[in-house]
Amino acid sequence: MEFRSNEHQHIRYNPLTDEWILVSPHRCLRPWSGQTEEPPEEAPPDPTNPLRAGATRANGQKNPMYTSTYVFPNDFPALLERVPAPPASTNPLFQAKEAKGTCRVMCFHPDTSVTLALMTTQEIRAVIDEWANQLQELGRRYTWVQIFENKGAIMGCSNPHPHCQIWASSFLPNVPRIKDRMQKEYYTEHGKSLLVNYLEQELQKKERIVLENDDWVALVPYWAMWPYESMLLPKHGRPQRLTDLTEEQRTALANIMKQLNTAYDNLFNCSFPYSMGWHGAPTGPGHKPGDSPHWLLHGLYFPPLLRSASVKKFMVGYEMLAQSQRDLTPEQAAEKLRQCDHTVHYKLRN
Amino acid sequence: MEFRSNEHQHIRYNPLTDEWILVSPHRCLRPWSGQTEEPPEEAPPDPTNPLRAGATRANGQKNPMYTSTYVFPNDFPALLERVPAPPASTNPLFQAKEAKGTCRVMCFHPDTSVTLALMTTQEIRAVIDEWANQLQELGRRYTWVQIFENKGAIMGCSNPHPHCQIWASSFLPNVPRIKDRMQKEYYTEHGKSLLVNYLEQELQKKERIVLENDDWVALVPYWAMWPYESMLLPKHGRPQRLTDLTEEQRTALANIMKQLNTAYDNLFNCSFPYSMGWHGAPTGPGHKPGDSPHWLLHGLYFPPLLRSASVKKFMVGYEMLAQSQRDLTPEQAAEKLRQCDHTVHYKLRN
Ligand SMILES: O=P(O)(O)O[C@H]1O[C@H](CO)[C@@H](O)[C@H](O)[C@H]1O
Ligand SMILES: O=P(O)(O)O[C@H]1O[C@H](CO)[C@@H](O)[C@H](O)[C@H]1O
Repeated sequence: MEFRSNEHQHIRYNPLTDEWILVSPHRCLRPWSGQTEEPPEEAPPDPTNPLRAGATRANGQKNPMYTSTYVFPNDFPALLERVPAPPASTNPLFQAKEAKGTCRVMCFHPDTSVTLALMTTQEIRAVIDEWANQLQELGRRYTWVQIFENKGAIMGCSNPHPHCQIWASSFLPNVPRIKDRMQKEYYTEHGKSLLVNYLEQELQKKERIVLENDDWVALVPYWAMWPYESMLLPKHGRPQRLTDLTEEQRTALANIMKQLNTAYDNLFNCSFPYSMGWHGAPTGPGHKPGDSPHWLLHGLYFPPLLRSASVKKFMVGYEMLAQSQRDLTPEQAAEKLRQCDHTVHYKLRN
Repeated sequence: MEFRSNEHQHIRYNPLTDEWILVSPHRCLRPWSGQTEEPPEEAPPDPTNPLRAGATRANGQKNPMYTSTYVFPNDFPALLERVPAPPASTNPLFQAKEAKGTCRVMCFHPDTSVTLALMTTQEIRAVIDEWANQLQELGRRYTWVQIFENKGAIMGCSNPHPHCQIWASSFLPNVPRIKDRMQKEYYTEHGKSLLVNYLEQELQKKERIVLENDDWVALVPYWAMWPYESMLLPKHGRPQRLTDLTEEQRTALANIMKQLNTAYDNLFNCSFPYSMGWHGAPTGPGHKPGDSPHWLLHGLYFPPLLRSASVKKFMVGYEMLAQSQRDLTPEQAAEKLRQCDHTVHYKLRN
């Protein structure tokens, strides 16, 4: 029998994280009788949401009447700037190290009822500019600045107001640490950045491309773990960090993000939940622009939904103990996303 | 200020997986307004559950009137025994490999209304014996035999009948692959197994021990990722695989599992959801008993609950993109679990 990747199980390698994924396309046929999520709440936006412009937050502080983005310190940060350091660990089995950092919340918009998909590209452009500002400022002091958006209750997001978080740390966290190493090794061996080479080949193969404009590509990576995972990659100039993006790249990014988020929402006619965020070269005092040619800046979307607005993929037992597993192939996911309307959002149809 | 690990954020190293965990104990103070799970269903057991003795499954097959454990092939397996192999990959960015395997379902008990915590130790002992049988049989052909239980709807478990799954594969999945390497490196350097050394030290420190009997210890690992994660470790004989366990060790394991599961259920007065499973030395044609002294067999419990039966820890944005983060410390979790009644289950109180 001839091997067909959309039919026959196989494992695929993620060269950025040095991990394999089990792909079992035949499993799409299994029936589902497990937990379904709450149908997506289409409740009217809460007029007392503490993140909206002018609202008073839990700690008594009042937000200004902001009109674009608004950044403030997380009231319950996982990382504090000043903490005593643990004593040096000499025992290899009980190692602790200092962790310093800061956590911020960034509102995307004064209005609780919108999401990125429903914002104008100018408004999204303001978000991108503020991301770059934050990276610029926090990157001076911190080794890693993780910008991420948890969207939807199913992703543990405790507030529906459009916002993201920024956690900056004195240490390089696991995922970027491994990605830094893998990209460095590739660069040393091939003299070119892993993701630059990867994108070139994806643009030829065309199988996993979801959307494209002059400056950006949205694709489902060959090694995607989540059913509708996607990656945003810049086509030109090899930016290593968000701060490297030109005016044109920022505007084009706003455009493609609006389209991608619209396609996601239209896939199951719901406000598509996900965690998304940015990975670029590490920052901190030892780093300066252009010093990390092995890196290519990229955005990542990790959405949990599998079959509908209410059935998600559970990364549990086998995935926690052994290896990630997916049912539909990345090529099938890209095809479905390509077929979604990326210009008119389902809420704006008439 | 003096460093206190139950108060001050720090990172801890997991020597088995080569990853760090961010520990932020001060964050236990934050209020929770996000998604809460459905209150645990205490619905009467479904008399038509397809996994119970004598029931007819979706594919029309009828279970025998089994009285102890019962193993059958998964009707919708992620791994099939016979599939064509993908062509050899020469491109480092698009690597696929053959994956063969088999997936089985193992019912723990004929009755849908019980769980491990509510079964007798004799009944649990039968489960352990069957685990060893399955490993023995599947381990002849397969490199890795992952035994795991997904318990609770919140863990994607599609059927409340007490059961686990066994996925055996021709490849060594990511997690055991890294654990094999890390334990081998430690063994080469220290001449003793990592987990044997670790357990010795934990038995002296006593801070993270939850339960103990003559043959087993249940502890919250120093590097635990999930709020109430725990590990089962054998005290004697250095078994490398489930098949190495003696009669005494199996009976003692049944005892400690009943106690641990009872303590978990009593923590929030609910049937505690988790994924649990076993890690031992790899199997397959190239392996034989005693050939992997760097390994120590261990059981792992990954429960998602954080604050109550309805509030779980979400491993999302920061965790997916950067690094796992926990609020309460492993020492605090062990202390809380130690305080839970591990002899009388909340459902049997009067
Ligand atoms: O086979 P089940 O129990 O239906 O499926 C569950 O466990 C599997 C193994 O951990 C996961 O891959 C699935 O996402 C989950 O829903
Ligand atoms: O800060 P939030 O949005 O309340 O918290 C959410 O995102 C954090 C960062 O990914 C996670 O650590 C939490 O588990 C999750 O509930």
